[in-house]
Amino acid sequence: PPTRCTDFDMAYFQSYSHVGIHEEMIKDRIRTETYRAAITQYQSSIAGKVVVDVGCGTGILSIFCALAGAKRVYAVDASEIAIQANEVVKANNLSDKVIVLHGRVEDVEIEEEVDVIISEWMGYMLLYESMLGSVVVARDRWLKPGGLILPSHASLYMAPITHTERYSESIDFWRNVYGIDMSAMLPLAKQCAFEEPSVETITGENVLTWPIVVKHVDCYTITTQELESVTARYKFTSMMRAPLHGFAFWFDVEFSGPAILPTNSHTQSLRSSITASDTNSLGSSQSKKRVKSDEVLILSTAPEEPPTHWQQTLLYFYDPIEVNQDQVIEGSVTLSQSKENARFLNIHLEYASAGRSFVKESVMR
Amino acid sequence: PPTRCTDFDMAYFQSYSHVGIHEEMIKDRIRTETYRAAITQYQSSIAGKVVVDVGCGTGILSIFCALAGAKRVYAVDASEIAIQANEVVKANNLSDKVIVLHGRVEDVEIEEEVDVIISEWMGYMLLYESMLGSVVVARDRWLKPGGLILPSHASLYMAPITHTERYSESIDFWRNVYGIDMSAMLPLAKQCAFEEPSVETITGENVLTWPIVVKHVDCYTITTQELESVTARYKFTSMMRAPLHGFAFWFDVEFSGPAILPTNSHTQSLRSSITASDTNSLGSSQSKKRVKSDEVLILSTAPEEPPTHWQQTLLYFYDPIEVNQDQVIEGSVTLSQSKENARFLNIHLEYASAGRSFVKESVMR
Repeated sequence: PPTRCTDFDMAYFQSYSHVGIHEEMIKDRIRTETYRAAITQYQSSIAGKVVVDVGCGTGILSIFCALAGAKRVYAVDASEIAIQANEVVKANNLSDKVIVLHGRVEDVEIEEEVDVIISEWMGYMLLYESMLGSVVVARDRWLKPGGLILPSHASLYMAPITHTERYSESIDFWRNVYGIDMSAMLPLAKQCAFEEPSVETITGENVLTWPIVVKHVDCYTITTQELESVTARYKFTSMMRAPLHGFAFWFDVEFSGPAILPTNSHTQSLRSSITASDTNSLGSSQSKKRVKSDEVLILSTAPEEPPTHWQQTLLYFYDPIEVNQDQVIEGSVTLSQSKENARFLNIHLEYASAGRSFVKESVMR
Repeated sequence: PPTRCTDFDMAYFQSYSHVGIHEEMIKDRIRTETYRAAITQYQSSIAGKVVVDVGCGTGILSIFCALAGAKRVYAVDASEIAIQANEVVKANNLSDKVIVLHGRVEDVEIEEEVDVIISEWMGYMLLYESMLGSVVVARDRWLKPGGLILPSHASLYMAPITHTERYSESIDFWRNVYGIDMSAMLPLAKQCAFEEPSVETITGENVLTWPIVVKHVDCYTITTQELESVTARYKFTSMMRAPLHGFAFWFDVEFSGPAILPTNSHTQSLRSSITASDTNSLGSSQSKKRVKSDEVLILSTAPEEPPTHWQQTLLYFYDPIEVNQDQVIEGSVTLSQSKENARFLNIHLEYASAGRSFVKESVMR
């Protein structure tokens, strides 16, 4: 039975009815160009095939797929923006190819199996918004065995960071305000600035050491249950002496074929035929990409990469902790869908280093 | 009887309990330095006197007044931030001078008359937030005849503007999105971008001609009834041929003594004594300042001045109108407190030029 559409879901869909949010996403060239490149790379898997675009928004990815030769694209969105997507499709004379369905993937009906699922489902910290669940529902309802999911994999990373500038700006600022000592503001200033995760752009210089992978998602196999709660233990060794201000989270997604070839022989032959017909496309075959990983298209939101509208998500401590070079920073982090509103993300961070330990709970709303 | 404290008022006060909003205001150096300069200019009217700071926030203006020699400063704020203000005052050993009152000016008790009211009450478009009403209440409850109000006067300006860049960015953008004609988005894009007033920074180059004064406020005499609805007729003559995109609103406030000397002889002598004792202060006397207007301190948020956190408020048309040089642009604008929530501002704009006319209704929430 489909999950219930809550008032929170309605508010969530409503938030996507405003044009500004789509403008911001489309204007993120890293995001949109990478999706377009992926469609080009997989053109031979899309041409003549049936595609579903989960959360189509204004319909731009659906139209890219139609222009890449898709036989039919089901553009699904539960937000009112679907009405606009339909207008755009009509104005581009693509109504015979792109079928806009205004509703949840749980509720709309598609009367055939699909070859490809495309979706831009990633939220801040990858998992915020919990939209990946909709991709899983679409996959389980409609994707042919051996079908393609774009993107196919996602990884959430975490690293300790130092960011004295940011800390000074919001916190130390109060120590001398036009000559007045307003340090009495510090406790509330820290709470207001750092209680919740903060979406902001940092650079590689803020990062104290190599990141760990908090969660690796294989879109071909992930289940919605797995997404309800994700826990990772971390153990970092600081590469420098610096004040540790907290942790940064970012993600990347990868556009690859199914990692595990299905044992079913029907789908195996389907996979082979995709690979075989792929030679004249720009992007070369999937199996090749699985081997030569430098040819796999990756959309990265890492601090050392050009900034995207996702930026990075920062979890600040209320007070910085001085760490030495080679000092070990360890603990665990749990990201779970809020029980109250599955679109919210509860973050439980445990930290221990040099005899200090604490727990920080926060919610991304 | 004091006006009722509504749920909307509670939400309004709540919005000022977050530190970030105070950080932004304090970091606006144009704002904070001008207030500090005004306190210095009027030091002789403040030293040894009783001051009330309406909406004191973190208490910075109250502390400036205490440091300028005020005998007593009542720092009033209905937001929880008053608790912080009290902590700051204590930490600065000013508890004997600065008395923080956590409540509305309608509800708190001050057992003496005050010599000076200081308040930073200005909202976007001057009148948004309707906080000037609180200054009027404080004045009518506590200010001595002939007392000083800082700032003393405020003017709201309006001018026609051209802003092709901004229009293109949000609207024309949809005409060609990665090669796809998404013009079908235009009606909703216009609505989303331009239905509500937009707070943004423009420059003098965006302004088509000299502004008109929509409303001039004398804080010594204004009544709350007068603030419920403000109407101005406008008639501009464009100084150039350009697409007219809408109107910009901005304000300035002036730090002067009462413009109309009271007829009451007691207060007249009081005024004279203030003027007489003013000669050794940095800022010279008030009567002098009324004459030499270039010595009056003004806090301006005009497009040609350095930007402040108020920026300017733009009211865009859904479609630009080509105007010729010397073309007349006329109509009227009415700003009124929303009946539903007096903190909101209803804006009724009537426009007529070259045979075209229309009405635009919007709400600043």
